[in-house]
Amino acid sequence: MSDAPVGGRTAPSVTTYPDDLQNLVERCLGGLRFATIPETEGLDEAMRYSLLAGGKRIRPVLALATARSLGAEPESVLPAATAIELIHTYSLIHDDLPAMDDDELRRGRPTSHVMFGENVAILAGDGLFAEALHLFTERQRGAPAAVLAALGELLGAVGVDGMVGGQYMDVTTSLPAVSSSPAPATAGSEAADRLRRLHALKTGRLIAASVCVVLALEGVAEPETIPYRRFADELGVLFQIVDDILDVTGSDEELGKPRGSDERHGKVTYVSVFGLERARELAGESHRKAQEALSAVSGDPRDLSQIADFIYTRHA
Amino acid sequence: MSDAPVGGRTAPSVTTYPDDLQNLVERCLGGLRFATIPETEGLDEAMRYSLLAGGKRIRPVLALATARSLGAEPESVLPAATAIELIHTYSLIHDDLPAMDDDELRRGRPTSHVMFGENVAILAGDGLFAEALHLFTERQRGAPAAVLAALGELLGAVGVDGMVGGQYMDVTTSLPAVSSSPAPATAGSEAADRLRRLHALKTGRLIAASVCVVLALEGVAEPETIPYRRFADELGVLFQIVDDILDVTGSDEELGKPRGSDERHGKVTYVSVFGLERARELAGESHRKAQEALSAVSGDPRDLSQIADFIYTRHA
Repeated sequence: MSDAPVGGRTAPSVTTYPDDLQNLVERCLGGLRFATIPETEGLDEAMRYSLLAGGKRIRPVLALATARSLGAEPESVLPAATAIELIHTYSLIHDDLPAMDDDELRRGRPTSHVMFGENVAILAGDGLFAEALHLFTERQRGAPAAVLAALGELLGAVGVDGMVGGQYMDVTTSLPAVSSSPAPATAGSEAADRLRRLHALKTGRLIAASVCVVLALEGVAEPETIPYRRFADELGVLFQIVDDILDVTGSDEELGKPRGSDERHGKVTYVSVFGLERARELAGESHRKAQEALSAVSGDPRDLSQIADFIYTRHA
Repeated sequence: MSDAPVGGRTAPSVTTYPDDLQNLVERCLGGLRFATIPETEGLDEAMRYSLLAGGKRIRPVLALATARSLGAEPESVLPAATAIELIHTYSLIHDDLPAMDDDELRRGRPTSHVMFGENVAILAGDGLFAEALHLFTERQRGAPAAVLAALGELLGAVGVDGMVGGQYMDVTTSLPAVSSSPAPATAGSEAADRLRRLHALKTGRLIAASVCVVLALEGVAEPETIPYRRFADELGVLFQIVDDILDVTGSDEELGKPRGSDERHGKVTYVSVFGLERARELAGESHRKAQEALSAVSGDPRDLSQIADFIYTRHA
């Protein structure tokens, strides 16, 4: 376990990552084709353009790592893991749209609507969402009741009480443009509470679902689920704090888009609400809590611990 | 069974419709709430604004009617039927967006993006799609394997090989603006084939799924499914031909939007490809084939027959 500070003043130590699981995800994503007739091949191309833009595949790797920690073959939950990455990609395409964040770069490449036009980008998102769930229902093996329960976990994390609701909060909440040294909020303030709720929905729930979907597939019941869920929730918080810090401290190359986009969009972030130093402390606390939760899981938490370290120390 | 010509030169006979099933759907939709925290109530409002805009609820009524024809209680498939209407509503919101058809009126009311802004409209569509499937997984009773199979039917009809793919074909295919009397295409021409494929995906598959999802839920197997599927496929074709005719012959009030929007958008329609007279003949043929298919179903096809008559003779 590394405790190098995030976006740090000292270089983070080299963190290992379950590369074998990432490779498994990448191979599966690379093999996907959605179009069955020539007329929809352009849509297929747009969907795969965003899907195959790289990245560490944190969500599906988390799902596969959860399976391995429970003693199951990672491959056995690959369709569910892949579905989660498709849904994440759909959300990025829609978030980048002109009517939303109007971002023109992601991972150093033009965003979907810049490449294919706004109409195709909307449909590429819609298509990824539908195909994610189709893949889940058609290819995920397991007892049908367990597959249904897992789908329910995932869909709850994606709807109004999850990712879509969080994005709604995000686009309808604009802070007045803040100075680079805002007065830090206190932990219990209204701004802090709202920030936590927004991110718990927008990013936290899908990250947590990456763990919880696998618990459902593997038929894990309480109380065994409790430390996993605690870990998953904390990891979602950690991810967002680090993301907010990196938007301020990362280089354009590392971020794959211009630094400071949150501030330009007037976004409510951990940095805008708490200030950079306090945000770094919060990341450290969150990382510690995630690792503590792992110490109570019944299985082997090594991959999951590596993922938490990676998220804490990542550059972009 | 009525055989009054569609959009007709003679007044269509008064057609009965399974109003009790429509009422059941309307009550269920009216009771839906999606937000669980105050911050997402605005999204909930936008979703319900489009969902509760009225209409005959043809897709969910078709699902309930299929259940009744098989001797099952219509209420037993109400979650699945409701999910289908949510998905239909999501597709309308996204189709109306400025980047797509840029329509400002639907059912005589401002479209979602006009009322709530483009960002909220995109998210209202996304939210309806997610909540549709969440509702399906959480509330639809039945053997888990049957519920999963039914979900698979629905999702196949919604993705790249269905509704979203059809919409992609629609926005990426523009005919040169046609005169009001185009040279009618022959049935086997390339334009006619493309038109059929486009609409089979864009509208046909969700209409057909409204029947097929219930077959899956009720565990109906081949060969009993065959006449139902034949009916469902033909009904999708009939629906689209009539829709295209009404866009030319209906009044603005009946349509709830300005007449002739297909032509202004340069859409490929049955009227633009075949001409109005031939489109009317095709509607008559399609109606006849749908009713013929019904004569072979093992159950009681009365409601389904009424729905086919209603679609054939409807004004808007």
